[in-house]
Amino acid sequence: MRRALALAASPEVPTHPNPRVGCVLLAPDGTTVGEGYHRGAGTPHAEVEALAVAGERAAGATAVVTLEPCNHTGRTGPCTEALMAAGVARVVVAQHDPNPLAAGGLATLAAAGIETDSGILRDEAVALNREWTFAHENGRPFVTWKYAATLDGRSAAADGTSQWITSSAARRDTHLLRGQCDAMVVGTGTVLADDPQLTVRDERDLPLDRQPLRVVLGERDLDPSLRVHDQAAHTLHLRMRDPEKALHVLYAEHDRHHVFLEGGPTLAAAFLSAGLVDEVVAYLAPALLGAGTAAVADLGITSIDDALRLVLVETTVVGEGAEANVRVVMRPRRTEEA
Amino acid sequence: MRRALALAASPEVPTHPNPRVGCVLLAPDGTTVGEGYHRGAGTPHAEVEALAVAGERAAGATAVVTLEPCNHTGRTGPCTEALMAAGVARVVVAQHDPNPLAAGGLATLAAAGIETDSGILRDEAVALNREWTFAHENGRPFVTWKYAATLDGRSAAADGTSQWITSSAARRDTHLLRGQCDAMVVGTGTVLADDPQLTVRDERDLPLDRQPLRVVLGERDLDPSLRVHDQAAHTLHLRMRDPEKALHVLYAEHDRHHVFLEGGPTLAAAFLSAGLVDEVVAYLAPALLGAGTAAVADLGITSIDDALRLVLVETTVVGEGAEANVRVVMRPRRTEEA
Repeated sequence: MRRALALAASPEVPTHPNPRVGCVLLAPDGTTVGEGYHRGAGTPHAEVEALAVAGERAAGATAVVTLEPCNHTGRTGPCTEALMAAGVARVVVAQHDPNPLAAGGLATLAAAGIETDSGILRDEAVALNREWTFAHENGRPFVTWKYAATLDGRSAAADGTSQWITSSAARRDTHLLRGQCDAMVVGTGTVLADDPQLTVRDERDLPLDRQPLRVVLGERDLDPSLRVHDQAAHTLHLRMRDPEKALHVLYAEHDRHHVFLEGGPTLAAAFLSAGLVDEVVAYLAPALLGAGTAAVADLGITSIDDALRLVLVETTVVGEGAEANVRVVMRPRRTEEA
Repeated sequence: MRRALALAASPEVPTHPNPRVGCVLLAPDGTTVGEGYHRGAGTPHAEVEALAVAGERAAGATAVVTLEPCNHTGRTGPCTEALMAAGVARVVVAQHDPNPLAAGGLATLAAAGIETDSGILRDEAVALNREWTFAHENGRPFVTWKYAATLDGRSAAADGTSQWITSSAARRDTHLLRGQCDAMVVGTGTVLADDPQLTVRDERDLPLDRQPLRVVLGERDLDPSLRVHDQAAHTLHLRMRDPEKALHVLYAEHDRHHVFLEGGPTLAAAFLSAGLVDEVVAYLAPALLGAGTAAVADLGITSIDDALRLVLVETTVVGEGAEANVRVVMRPRRTEEA
């Protein structure tokens, strides 16, 4: 299974929209007769790759897979059928498939007389596809809220100016994080006020279909001339104000598993109050403003006892010298304890 | 000189009110004939200790001292006289004495025909007595402003509650920093609102005369029953509102070199606006409030271009697990560039 996990984690494999999966086929004497891993949407699944390598040696073999073989026909046929057709004797998996559309593979295999086993190194397998797993288990994308502020918690000065609170090193770092998500969410307020492009801009030249979906939340109209409507990425204007409903639409209708929330204080407060933030990434500049827009709008909290307590996951200095900013990653206590 | 610096930095020596000083006496053949270091106010100076060890071997020797020998009679006689009386041939120092009352030692020695040299490893010597040097060079104490806040910059909730924003690990850490200062400054507002004791409470049992001076700034009356008036430490009520004047009084009349500013947002803003903060220590709890008292009151800054920019010196995680807080140390750009 460690080998299967290593295959799944091959660095060239994109982290979305499909889960990363690895498979090793072992002959009854323990020798490896086939290996494979999924290389992204539209390419063969890990099991199919491994079976192709093994050929006739798959008969009687044990398939070790990081994720329960799929039971449905998507862009490729169901892996359960391929395993049965090849005469595999036993299937061992790390993680059950949390996707309701694809689950049930082990039961199908067992009904066909194949020995099955599951749960081996499950945590490592889940960690490989953290947001994908979360999304299918919760019926909504994992939400990372990112904000930039001064050390005293201001995301803009009193006159509304906010460019640039954080250093260019911190902004480069933000683009790396954006690139790990499959949707970026802001409110109409941010789009109308700042006209951001909302794309991943880094050393790579990301093609249109690899750019995260730009999602604008809110009921106000958006002029077609706004940069969010340019050809650099796809854009979705959700004319609603309910974060929960918006996340459900992104999951169920657009297959999104990891949202990067970059809106202003009001949108952040709406998601925070609804318990819909799963990770907070704060970029803090060593600067003080003393006035201006607070990073978070009113959460309805009046006493220190009711403060929204988070768990510190990671503290990093991004950039050097005058460019040095602090990046703090936190998770809500519930997420961390889960 | 490296040996003299190491002697000066002996761990049992208090960092205030006197500077840490080390001295090595070398015979003409380079052998060490005496060593000494100053052990705190009221004890012999480093040169006097080294001369006592060397005895008659001091005649013709070179004295290597981290700080220019004093030229005045304080609680001990001037070291210049002791060096001359012992027949020392040469005096080499790292740092000129910045204290106007004690300076001029090298000139006195040179006038007496003793060879003098200065500036060797000066930066290291200054670093040994950073705040003491700063205070004498600037005619006021070095000011460390410490605050505790949530990640979104709130130092109290909307109803005024603030106990406890930061973790007990962060509060223990604060007491260690308090113990490195010789005065703690708050405003009457903080004393009247919170009735803090303002003492160093840690594993050591600090005697009264080693506790930092408790300084309350402001014109309002303070009831004798307040904890700041207990017998645990000395207290000074400065009935004024001008930070600059208060710092001058603390330096000139109370021999204070390092102030730990712990007041509320208004007092902090007054010191910051006056350019009288030389170091910022922020304890940030991984929590969000969304409303409440801001860590810094209005600084009169309206645009991001005028933000008070600091330089990040150190970022540390204090405490573990749910106790983990972030400590960020910053200096104003001017201090860092100086």
